Amino acid sequence: MHDADCIFCKIVKGEIPSTKVYESDSVYAFEDANPMMPVHVLVVPKNHYRNIADSIPDDEMAALMQAAGAVAKLKGIDESGFRLVTNTNDDACQTVHHVHVHVLGGAQMNEGNPSLKA
Amino acid sequence: MHDADCIFCKIVKGEIPSTKVYESDSVYAFEDANPMMPVHVLVVPKNHYRNIADSIPDDEMAALMQAAGAVAKLKGIDESGFRLVTNTNDDACQTVHHVHVHVLGGAQMNEGNPSLKA
Repeated sequence: MHDADCIFCKIVKGEIPSTKVYESDSVYAFEDANPMMPVHVLVVPKNHYRNIADSIPDDEMAALMQAAGAVAKLKGIDESGFRLVTNTNDDACQTVHHVHVHVLGGAQMNEGNPSLKA
Repeated sequence: MHDADCIFCKIVKGEIPSTKVYESDSVYAFEDANPMMPVHVLVVPKNHYRNIADSIPDDEMAALMQAAGAVAKLKGIDESGFRLVTNTNDDACQTVHHVHVHVLGGAQMNEGNPSLKA
């Protein structure tokens, strides 16, 4: 279940190179190409879903979030702390319309105020 | 499965008042008492888990995330856009150690840079 034009589908299929961090049957995680933090990994379902409110089956949804926790452990930030961020549509600046969870950490973060642009 | 000292467990049990937004068998969602955005709802599992990397059963994990999407729809921000944020431990400023998903929206957000404090 892929979208031929989706950059994350191409990454999952290996058509675009990425630095793999974690992989399971239904999930792939890779280094963000433009990291905002010392640790910045993207976790995506292998199947194409547009966003977190799309019809993602229970097992794939659970696997996605558990993978995010697994990535934090692999990166050694599960104790120090990490932030998971998932953006949907324009107000949240979703740029790639294949659902993805940002795993952020490796330094002290602020309280996460998404500060209004206007 | 509750923690007697946990503020979110008390909210789930109705011992501390809250403004309910959504409820299912395993999930409760309520208005954040100090909203950072026009829409700011907290979604929590009714059972007590410390954070997203805790051992959350598949069905409860899936229900938690699907509830976040449901909340976005109920609040009318599923099309305009919304951000889900889950903080774990100190680097991410986790203040209540009962896993919770922030549902944020209702205005344009920035790109979500968690800007280092130091």
